[in-house]
Amino acid sequence: MTGIALLTVPTTDPGDTRPFEVLTETGYRTDDLVSVIGKTEGNGCVNDFSRTLATAVWEPRIPEAAVTVFSGGTEGVLSPHVNMFVRDDRHHPGFDRGLVAAARRSRVLDPGEIGRANQVDTVADTVGKLLAELGVTPADVHLVLVKCPLLTSDKITALHAAGQVPVATDTYASMGWSRAASSLGIAVALGECDRATALRALAGAADVWSARASASAGAELDDCHVLVVAESPTAANPLRALHGHMADAIDLASVQELLSQVAAAGGTVRQIFAKAEADPRGSVRGLRHTMLTDSDINATRHARGAVGGLLSALKGDGAVYVSGGAEHQGPPGGGSLTVIYELPTPEGTDAP
Amino acid sequence: MTGIALLTVPTTDPGDTRPFEVLTETGYRTDDLVSVIGKTEGNGCVNDFSRTLATAVWEPRIPEAAVTVFSGGTEGVLSPHVNMFVRDDRHHPGFDRGLVAAARRSRVLDPGEIGRANQVDTVADTVGKLLAELGVTPADVHLVLVKCPLLTSDKITALHAAGQVPVATDTYASMGWSRAASSLGIAVALGECDRATALRALAGAADVWSARASASAGAELDDCHVLVVAESPTAANPLRALHGHMADAIDLASVQELLSQVAAAGGTVRQIFAKAEADPRGSVRGLRHTMLTDSDINATRHARGAVGGLLSALKGDGAVYVSGGAEHQGPPGGGSLTVIYELPTPEGTDAP
Amino acid sequence: MTGIALLTVPTTDPGDTRPFEVLTETGYRTDDLVSVIGKTEGNGCVNDFSRTLATAVWEPRIPEAAVTVFSGGTEGVLSPHVNMFVRDDRHHPGFDRGLVAAARRSRVLDPGEIGRANQVDTVADTVGKLLAELGVTPADVHLVLVKCPLLTSDKITALHAAGQVPVATDTYASMGWSRAASSLGIAVALGECDRATALRALAGAADVWSARASASAGAELDDCHVLVVAESPTAANPLRALHGHMADAIDLASVQELLSQVAAAGGTVRQIFAKAEADPRGSVRGLRHTMLTDSDINATRHARGAVGGLLSALKGDGAVYVSGGAEHQGPPGGGSLTVIYELPTPEGTDAP
Amino acid sequence: MTGIALLTVPTTDPGDTRPFEVLTETGYRTDDLVSVIGKTEGNGCVNDFSRTLATAVWEPRIPEAAVTVFSGGTEGVLSPHVNMFVRDDRHHPGFDRGLVAAARRSRVLDPGEIGRANQVDTVADTVGKLLAELGVTPADVHLVLVKCPLLTSDKITALHAAGQVPVATDTYASMGWSRAASSLGIAVALGECDRATALRALAGAADVWSARASASAGAELDDCHVLVVAESPTAANPLRALHGHMADAIDLASVQELLSQVAAAGGTVRQIFAKAEADPRGSVRGLRHTMLTDSDINATRHARGAVGGLLSALKGDGAVYVSGGAEHQGPPGGGSLTVIYELPTPEGTDAP
Repeated sequence: MTGIALLTVPTTDPGDTRPFEVLTETGYRTDDLVSVIGKTEGNGCVNDFSRTLATAVWEPRIPEAAVTVFSGGTEGVLSPHVNMFVRDDRHHPGFDRGLVAAARRSRVLDPGEIGRANQVDTVADTVGKLLAELGVTPADVHLVLVKCPLLTSDKITALHAAGQVPVATDTYASMGWSRAASSLGIAVALGECDRATALRALAGAADVWSARASASAGAELDDCHVLVVAESPTAANPLRALHGHMADAIDLASVQELLSQVAAAGGTVRQIFAKAEADPRGSVRGLRHTMLTDSDINATRHARGAVGGLLSALKGDGAVYVSGGAEHQGPPGGGSLTVIYELPTPEGTDAP
Repeated sequence: MTGIALLTVPTTDPGDTRPFEVLTETGYRTDDLVSVIGKTEGNGCVNDFSRTLATAVWEPRIPEAAVTVFSGGTEGVLSPHVNMFVRDDRHHPGFDRGLVAAARRSRVLDPGEIGRANQVDTVADTVGKLLAELGVTPADVHLVLVKCPLLTSDKITALHAAGQVPVATDTYASMGWSRAASSLGIAVALGECDRATALRALAGAADVWSARASASAGAELDDCHVLVVAESPTAANPLRALHGHMADAIDLASVQELLSQVAAAGGTVRQIFAKAEADPRGSVRGLRHTMLTDSDINATRHARGAVGGLLSALKGDGAVYVSGGAEHQGPPGGGSLTVIYELPTPEGTDAP
Repeated sequence: MTGIALLTVPTTDPGDTRPFEVLTETGYRTDDLVSVIGKTEGNGCVNDFSRTLATAVWEPRIPEAAVTVFSGGTEGVLSPHVNMFVRDDRHHPGFDRGLVAAARRSRVLDPGEIGRANQVDTVADTVGKLLAELGVTPADVHLVLVKCPLLTSDKITALHAAGQVPVATDTYASMGWSRAASSLGIAVALGECDRATALRALAGAADVWSARASASAGAELDDCHVLVVAESPTAANPLRALHGHMADAIDLASVQELLSQVAAAGGTVRQIFAKAEADPRGSVRGLRHTMLTDSDINATRHARGAVGGLLSALKGDGAVYVSGGAEHQGPPGGGSLTVIYELPTPEGTDAP
Repeated sequence: MTGIALLTVPTTDPGDTRPFEVLTETGYRTDDLVSVIGKTEGNGCVNDFSRTLATAVWEPRIPEAAVTVFSGGTEGVLSPHVNMFVRDDRHHPGFDRGLVAAARRSRVLDPGEIGRANQVDTVADTVGKLLAELGVTPADVHLVLVKCPLLTSDKITALHAAGQVPVATDTYASMGWSRAASSLGIAVALGECDRATALRALAGAADVWSARASASAGAELDDCHVLVVAESPTAANPLRALHGHMADAIDLASVQELLSQVAAAGGTVRQIFAKAEADPRGSVRGLRHTMLTDSDINATRHARGAVGGLLSALKGDGAVYVSGGAEHQGPPGGGSLTVIYELPTPEGTDAP
């Protein structure tokens, strides 16, 4: 059993250590951490040292087996925070199932593998191991989060020097390739497509996406950090999850549909994990957007700001996990969507 | 009578002249234009030449009495477009009232007057003349739009050379002062506060705001362009308006309240005019935002992106008029809000 | 004969029409304009409407045969200005040769041709016609300036819809491809490489560059604007030019070498035309630069700012023509360089 | 005695620990560090977490008495690096004087003190203590570097809540006020003006500046870090320094004058410390610049890029310390300038 609790804590800056105190005050230990999923306030792009700073603060303090995923970019009303997935195997009376989670790091990727088949395979393999570890099937899974590397100028130059061709010579563009490969690896592991189709999708020749994949890239790591969140009868806790997808960046209906299900179950929304991207066709519902022609602000920043504005209003606060760049994570122009919620404790039972 | 019709037309770039053709195709002439209110795709700040380009294209073609208001910034899903308020004094059968509008330019402001009492007075005076011209009372008004000047480096240097003190030495900051003075002028003209209170508010010593004011500043003009939109029994058309305000940038409830009223009346939303700003306290509902500490993207761009994401989703498309910088236009951190909608033609009547 | 004079005039904004007055005051007519080469103050990238605004102001006023080249981006100390090349066929006593110039527009390029062989050929063809028109050989040429189109979101979507593959799906990246194709067309026309080599260079398989090519891309045009400046015995004026290249962005020695030649000839520097780029290897003389990993400011802006700082200091003022993105215009990381200078009128002679 | 050596080491990222190895390889210990003065690759403005990351890596490893000054912003050709001032009291044969340095941290400043008289006094006091510690007079000093705090949104809100008025409500503007107060404190300590004049200068009523002051602000500290570098007969080493100022951002002559003195002495330039700013009058030598009207890139970034381009070309590499925002550090539009150089070891002597 790896039942979990979820603690969402605001941060005052990327190096804020207050969440560790909250962990302790809530009765958990650092050793209980399965994963820390944070939004930090950098640009979310190549030179985002807010992520690196957060990583430098968190990595030395968490268990070897735990992983961090810091996603930069809190444009607009988005609020910097961390989501701590904590091991909590207590049996909550009145519940016969619950959320479980497991995390691990993949092997280190060679720069030449970034954005390519080897990354697809590596992520698929890591997700597969996590499913086995949790004892769940793909159908039980509601969210797979991946943090994966990108290509810096140094890595690109090194590849060229070695006679190799990098997947992209633009550092920002390399982030998209890395997210794409990770997401297709997730799709393969979840049985949403086979490997051959995934590779064709990576080459632009197939349209494949997963509504449960959430991948972000960063310069602060060389391997892939992977977290799987699923529902399982091996746990007994009040956390539940739903997943779906936004068809485009203003797809209010799809979000409301999930929130209605939560309300119908009497649940309380605990967190929304969403991916967002500028529609690659340059328009949303037939009207032109300017995210792809704005040379002052990268498209991923625009997309987070817009979708963050919508989801924050729906959740009622800005501590939402909206990550930019949704290649193969939801349909083009849209994005994957997971809502974690908490059921009320049934009457007549006590908290564990 | 100055009854109006409203045409909202997407633009392919700030210099796009397609809307003139739409005007003609719809049966109007350029001479019918009362005002053109556009969103252009620049940064919405000091060096936004998308506004200047649009102005250069429109000003020579519209009637002397008409005014343009181009608001830069289509962050996120916002879509560049123009809203043409066209004189249409036809009596629409089945309607005994309708929307009316009038516009005019104020006198030219001296750079030393920008952001100061003289600008408050000038705008108040111009709005007053427009109310008189329309024959409406402040209670009939749903929207007052103002475009006003800002201080460029040249103007600041000229003021210093003349021994005068500009309201701000930072060009971007001067935009806020100009918007504030315009908005307080609107509040005075609408009887929402007296002149003395407005001046104290400008000095930071009073909390005054108008839910019907929408002001934006630009380097492309030296006077103030003012448009008043009101409801009046002197017109007979299917257009109606509602106004309210967002209490903060994620105030979904206030927007939904207005939209519910439109739905209850059987109406169709034609346009939403909203102001947005980064909450000056640095947080939204107790959670920190980073719009005011982001030195890469100005706060007004963040605010437009977030509120634009919400309102576009609610309207169902990105051609929404969201303008950044809401000093005295709605409460701090929130913004003024006007919804223009169209009632169905009553059964048994024909369009004029 | 097409002898020329050069007028460099500061501008107060991209739409400033003061240079037309200067033209008249100096004794020229608008009809004398051969070309207007301006620096405008936008971002120099895809959504640079300062270029479009300048184009909208200039194009209707200049002769059909004249061309405009507006290069956006006046980062740092660079100062917005226009360089007017004016036909002046007067024989200046004491001179037996002088600068000549000619300009023309190419055919319109289809979006699918941008950045590809057809653009190379089109530019080469246009340059060839201008050489013939001027009656000069490639050896006489000191500068070939080209303004060429880029791919917007709309054009990319249209290509995809037509089943075509654009040279780049990123709008900013398309600027680099267009500049590359134009520059290689210049190299072919000047006999610096053959067509086959140019096409291999475009494919990344050959290292070819011209020290006399200066290309910039913009969304404001669909054809290519081309200007050739050469020295010729058919003219008799005091203008002369030198060309060379900067080996990297801090190559002070190469610039000083040209300036020393000017000084040795008793000349006065009238203008410097330079291209600048972030070294694609990520370092300058072995030290890492961060232009290619900065996701907040595009690399072309960085490069203009740095090289502009150096050249402005050497010229003594900021009205220097530094254009960003130097693909095949000078060696990688460096850029082409042309100095136009004026010889003193020999003693005992009078100005014409 | 506190003779020093200077080690300048490139960094691969703000958290790079390679310089510690270089320190050891060169024969020094971490305990020998007097101060670490680094250029990191963030935006150099409010949300520059590259500085915070560098601070997080360095502060725990250096002696209690040592101070760090990380200045963000390596625009253009500037290259991220650290300058380690290391205690080296060995007597270098053949030298009868040398560079000395000392550093310390001031008391913590209350947010309400930032940019005000108390900060002037605090910095002046700290510099005074360092002069006494070194046993030097103001005339011996060539450089005083200060890192000082700024106002974040949180601090501004806290001041307002406490009924206090912050020196600025714009976080970026607060950096300028803090630099100004620190620089005037330096001027007072060096006897360049008296306290009353400094306070009048802070209020904009006097024109005072120091050619030896270099101040930068950051969110990563609450006190002031101060380093004094002077020449003294109590040391015997080959390091020497010169100081002067740039009159404007293209003041090549002033830099060349210092470099000529170095060359005349047979010295080798080891480092250049310069401040840069956008001329507050909006022009350089009569020609308009656009740094103050560019709402996409802050003026300090522009200024560093331009001056960095010039100084890197003169030094021959990009590892130059150019810091932006030169309030009272050199004349308006210019900046303070210190060149550290190394004399050759006299013949017949051996290195210690």
